[in-house]
Amino acid sequence: MQAARLHEYTEEMDDALSIDDVDAPQVSQADHVVVDVEGAGWCQTDNHVIEGMWEQYMPQDLPMTLGHENAGTVVEVGDGVSVVEEGDQVICHPVMTCGTCRPCRLGEDMYCENVAFPGLSTDGGFAESLLTNERAVIPLPDGVDTTDIAPHADAGITAYHAVKKAARELNPGDHAVVVGIGGLGHIGLQCLDAMSAASITAVDLKDSALDLATDLGAHHTVNPDSTDVASEIESITDSVGAQQVLDFVGSDATTALAPDVVAAGGDHHVVGYGGHVHEPAQALVNGEFSYRGTLVGQYTELQELVALVERGDVDLRTSRYGLDEINDVAAKLEHGEIEGRAVITP
Amino acid sequence: MQAARLHEYTEEMDDALSIDDVDAPQVSQADHVVVDVEGAGWCQTDNHVIEGMWEQYMPQDLPMTLGHENAGTVVEVGDGVSVVEEGDQVICHPVMTCGTCRPCRLGEDMYCENVAFPGLSTDGGFAESLLTNERAVIPLPDGVDTTDIAPHADAGITAYHAVKKAARELNPGDHAVVVGIGGLGHIGLQCLDAMSAASITAVDLKDSALDLATDLGAHHTVNPDSTDVASEIESITDSVGAQQVLDFVGSDATTALAPDVVAAGGDHHVVGYGGHVHEPAQALVNGEFSYRGTLVGQYTELQELVALVERGDVDLRTSRYGLDEINDVAAKLEHGEIEGRAVITP
Amino acid sequence: MQAARLHEYTEEMDDALSIDDVDAPQVSQADHVVVDVEGAGWCQTDNHVIEGMWEQYMPQDLPMTLGHENAGTVVEVGDGVSVVEEGDQVICHPVMTCGTCRPCRLGEDMYCENVAFPGLSTDGGFAESLLTNERAVIPLPDGVDTTDIAPHADAGITAYHAVKKAARELNPGDHAVVVGIGGLGHIGLQCLDAMSAASITAVDLKDSALDLATDLGAHHTVNPDSTDVASEIESITDSVGAQQVLDFVGSDATTALAPDVVAAGGDHHVVGYGGHVHEPAQALVNGEFSYRGTLVGQYTELQELVALVERGDVDLRTSRYGLDEINDVAAKLEHGEIEGRAVITP
Amino acid sequence: MQAARLHEYTEEMDDALSIDDVDAPQVSQADHVVVDVEGAGWCQTDNHVIEGMWEQYMPQDLPMTLGHENAGTVVEVGDGVSVVEEGDQVICHPVMTCGTCRPCRLGEDMYCENVAFPGLSTDGGFAESLLTNERAVIPLPDGVDTTDIAPHADAGITAYHAVKKAARELNPGDHAVVVGIGGLGHIGLQCLDAMSAASITAVDLKDSALDLATDLGAHHTVNPDSTDVASEIESITDSVGAQQVLDFVGSDATTALAPDVVAAGGDHHVVGYGGHVHEPAQALVNGEFSYRGTLVGQYTELQELVALVERGDVDLRTSRYGLDEINDVAAKLEHGEIEGRAVITP
Repeated sequence: MQAARLHEYTEEMDDALSIDDVDAPQVSQADHVVVDVEGAGWCQTDNHVIEGMWEQYMPQDLPMTLGHENAGTVVEVGDGVSVVEEGDQVICHPVMTCGTCRPCRLGEDMYCENVAFPGLSTDGGFAESLLTNERAVIPLPDGVDTTDIAPHADAGITAYHAVKKAARELNPGDHAVVVGIGGLGHIGLQCLDAMSAASITAVDLKDSALDLATDLGAHHTVNPDSTDVASEIESITDSVGAQQVLDFVGSDATTALAPDVVAAGGDHHVVGYGGHVHEPAQALVNGEFSYRGTLVGQYTELQELVALVERGDVDLRTSRYGLDEINDVAAKLEHGEIEGRAVITP
Repeated sequence: MQAARLHEYTEEMDDALSIDDVDAPQVSQADHVVVDVEGAGWCQTDNHVIEGMWEQYMPQDLPMTLGHENAGTVVEVGDGVSVVEEGDQVICHPVMTCGTCRPCRLGEDMYCENVAFPGLSTDGGFAESLLTNERAVIPLPDGVDTTDIAPHADAGITAYHAVKKAARELNPGDHAVVVGIGGLGHIGLQCLDAMSAASITAVDLKDSALDLATDLGAHHTVNPDSTDVASEIESITDSVGAQQVLDFVGSDATTALAPDVVAAGGDHHVVGYGGHVHEPAQALVNGEFSYRGTLVGQYTELQELVALVERGDVDLRTSRYGLDEINDVAAKLEHGEIEGRAVITP
Repeated sequence: MQAARLHEYTEEMDDALSIDDVDAPQVSQADHVVVDVEGAGWCQTDNHVIEGMWEQYMPQDLPMTLGHENAGTVVEVGDGVSVVEEGDQVICHPVMTCGTCRPCRLGEDMYCENVAFPGLSTDGGFAESLLTNERAVIPLPDGVDTTDIAPHADAGITAYHAVKKAARELNPGDHAVVVGIGGLGHIGLQCLDAMSAASITAVDLKDSALDLATDLGAHHTVNPDSTDVASEIESITDSVGAQQVLDFVGSDATTALAPDVVAAGGDHHVVGYGGHVHEPAQALVNGEFSYRGTLVGQYTELQELVALVERGDVDLRTSRYGLDEINDVAAKLEHGEIEGRAVITP
Repeated sequence: MQAARLHEYTEEMDDALSIDDVDAPQVSQADHVVVDVEGAGWCQTDNHVIEGMWEQYMPQDLPMTLGHENAGTVVEVGDGVSVVEEGDQVICHPVMTCGTCRPCRLGEDMYCENVAFPGLSTDGGFAESLLTNERAVIPLPDGVDTTDIAPHADAGITAYHAVKKAARELNPGDHAVVVGIGGLGHIGLQCLDAMSAASITAVDLKDSALDLATDLGAHHTVNPDSTDVASEIESITDSVGAQQVLDFVGSDATTALAPDVVAAGGDHHVVGYGGHVHEPAQALVNGEFSYRGTLVGQYTELQELVALVERGDVDLRTSRYGLDEINDVAAKLEHGEIEGRAVITP
């Protein structure tokens, strides 16, 4: 089968992956599931993997097929699998977990002590088919399009996971700021609107992204190119600040907003990870705020997100590309030229 | 009366404050309370105030009497005061709050929109008497020595507040790390032991501090001078990491421990604030950990701490000094030569 | 001034209160506030007070003016009051609290150790003017009609308080059941819809109430007269049960739903209080569910509810009556003949 | 092998079970584990099963081997098992779960949609060996005696689970009441002491049980035969009430304590289940308290309890009996003649 594979780390996006002919995966364990990939979202993390940013955090053997945001149809299952059968349409939670370690028993899939992460540590879904396991697959309700829903497998769950933490802290009358209305941000904004009664301010450098934010439920928008974000938030929140900031960018500039923007006792959720967090400890103390890292989400959270999608609460903006266009997609995202989420259809 | 006052910001601790003769404070509002100061703890924050580190966070009119960690006997009350009367022994919550803004109504005293902070924004307790208000004073149980308990007014409540947040997240079998076994740390360690069943590792550069930690209930100790902290924690926690880190130092070096030491999903509480937090956003994402700033604590938390003291769960190590020795104390703390907590007895 | 007063406990609603000519209240303490009552909601609790049900829980000296759900314009303030001034439009939190006891310091207004409850323990708002205090009044945003908003002072805050506890436990895909779509229930339903993404089932004996529920956002409706509630919930929830039940009736029949309707680990919130909770302890154990009593709400929760109203998330159904019609209103509510909430305009 | 089996429901404890010769269980699924039972605790629930109280809640095919509180040595494992191997010493979580349903994925083992409950719905551990599965077994640290630890498999985890919920709500200075210092209560009391800094009052009808409570850390004791519990708690708590009540009895009399004993906003945890909860809904509303049912606990909670045992925080009082003495044990417990916990050693 054809698969888009990374052979060496590079900064050159437009030539990063090569389309190789490789053996299709097959079931070799009782809990294995092979999925015919019908949609595989392209993620900023794919760019970061290409650049080698994950090498120190994950064991990676190149060449490796990328793609960690997958949905499709089950084509083969191991003999211990009962959750799905051949022919079922599924969305794939990004990681294959063991189910027996303490984090797995607590429902904390991302902390599994024996995790494999297709697309980051094993072959992923930019290929005709993908090997995953029973604990990763969620059967889809009838009528859901697997290509359309694919980005929820990672962009969606990651945004949802951060928003769920934020929503728990937000009361009516409180303010939330969503920084970056791209692939993740436009999902997060909608989840936040569905799950809280907070007042939402969207921040983005592109006016088109801010227009989208307004369409999706933002109550205020701020473009840092034309306005000082801190002053604007101060004015919007009557000098109290935003109780929760969801930072889907994670650059030096966006994490630096926290001391001026986060209300006392609030949180700046670091979801994107382009840059550094760099502040005097005294700033965190004086404002009693937190920088909270956020990493994908739980299997059960992906179930909850699918429920939100079924309710019609989350409208995903996607564009489709063939496997052969994948390096174009990589380059476009690098230059901020993708609206919503790009989905590869291998 | 005599008062130790700061006339200008300086790095020279041994000559920082001058003992001035000033008018004793008097009640001028219905909720005012004047306290004869019998103990006023010296805090690292006093050094930071002297250096001018709080100027950008707090309005400060010099000269100003320092001292925000006070206990003593009530000598005068406004006519609206019912919680205490003349002659009552009290510990003073560090801030004077309005009681009517939303943070006050939520019990979040430190976020009061009309706060005054004696010793940081108005005259404090390194003086024979102190002006505060009804919302700041907590009557003490019989038999408590006001000089001995004074450090709980700030060191104690700050440590307790951070520990309370940490303890909520700690289950039996989990690990906590306490960084810095000084004035705050030695209190925090004991609170943690009383309020959780976590396994506690103390980290300090002084072996005498680590001995104290062991006496006070630490299960493990690590001296960064002789051992690599991250490897040691990895070994102690069976590679899982510590679910909660209480950082009473807050230097560049101690905040940098987080990515290697904090368990997935855990927290690094920033209580001390000597240096910077500086990490790639990716580190927070990959480990899904948080840097959580912590600022003093609530009035009700000081009540809870007084209850812990009454139970005999917290043993405070103090040494007493006259008002005239105050610059010596400042210099000694700067050089790490104070064991436990220094208390001024004006 | 005129005031509707209870002279003796009775079961006869149509003659329960007499319109007496009494002295108008005046400020006698620094924190007092006198409000010209422009709206005073009639509440099921008023019927219960008339019947003597609150005598054992509250000190009551008859005759007493009823009415604990008040809004209007400030006409006089004590000299310690800063939150409002003469002429301000306000909604009144039901209780006058001391502000200094530990529950007050925690924000738990309803647990104040020195509470007075106008309409239940002192003279209430079915009168031309009402004596309350600074801690009870919330200034209203411009453009809010004091008569229209009055029911939020008790019906609203009580429904909101219960819903806030429930919403915290509800994830997308979860189910909530709202029992009783009357004065409180129709508010609770809307709050729930605004603050969660749960699937909502409304239960009521009147089809008109169920139609209202559908209009206000319920996803399913059940009339116990025509359908077995437990079977219907089982079918709606795919045999899982409802994670949260909000019982605005609190009769023997409605509390008896819990074992069959509440999902494992879920809660049955007892808001209404017409009858008894009566179940084998084993039922609570086997289903690991809770009966959670709920009592009005916090001052800050009323602020949050006002914010929801400002957002347009809660649409209140009210009908207006003069003070002279008050016994008619009492009788009508007793017979279930009031739609939404009746507001007296003294 | 020999097994103590129930052939028909009966009220006669001294002749309830017969010792039958049955086939030893064998592995027939990949996740099966067979354990040589070295300790099987006798539980009040066994009496309730004998009486037929669980028939309506659980599918039960008589004859059935009782015993749901088991520890021992692994003698056979299915080929998919990796957590343990032959020869490992284990404690058995009471239920066999599927691992794939949503409750399992959330870590809520007791809510598993495909659960089997040895001793309640399938053959249990009053036998030479027990069939369970990988998800139920927890390997024990070296040096732990399997017979001694067996009661933690159910009595322990149930007490711990309730205490964990309570401890989360308890601050220093708060009060907790433990009702019933028997098999569960004496464990719960110690967990509470280890995990909170609350003041603990033990309530029991036997003075010997109260003496044990004092030895294990209770700060106050009350015998309802000689003192009015409500007045005594009022006096101990300065009229505030106990924030948390852990009711290990669950009789009509003990659940009736709640309105008079539980502090506003507090919880009465129903762990034992001898009788009924019967109160006016108004009592729950007026005191804003909850009756919270509690059912066994999670696998991860049993891990946490084992950690507490390893720390030396929980001292279990047990007495040992042969399989042939089992009906004596049943009768003795019925008459309150067992101190601590009886363990059968088949």
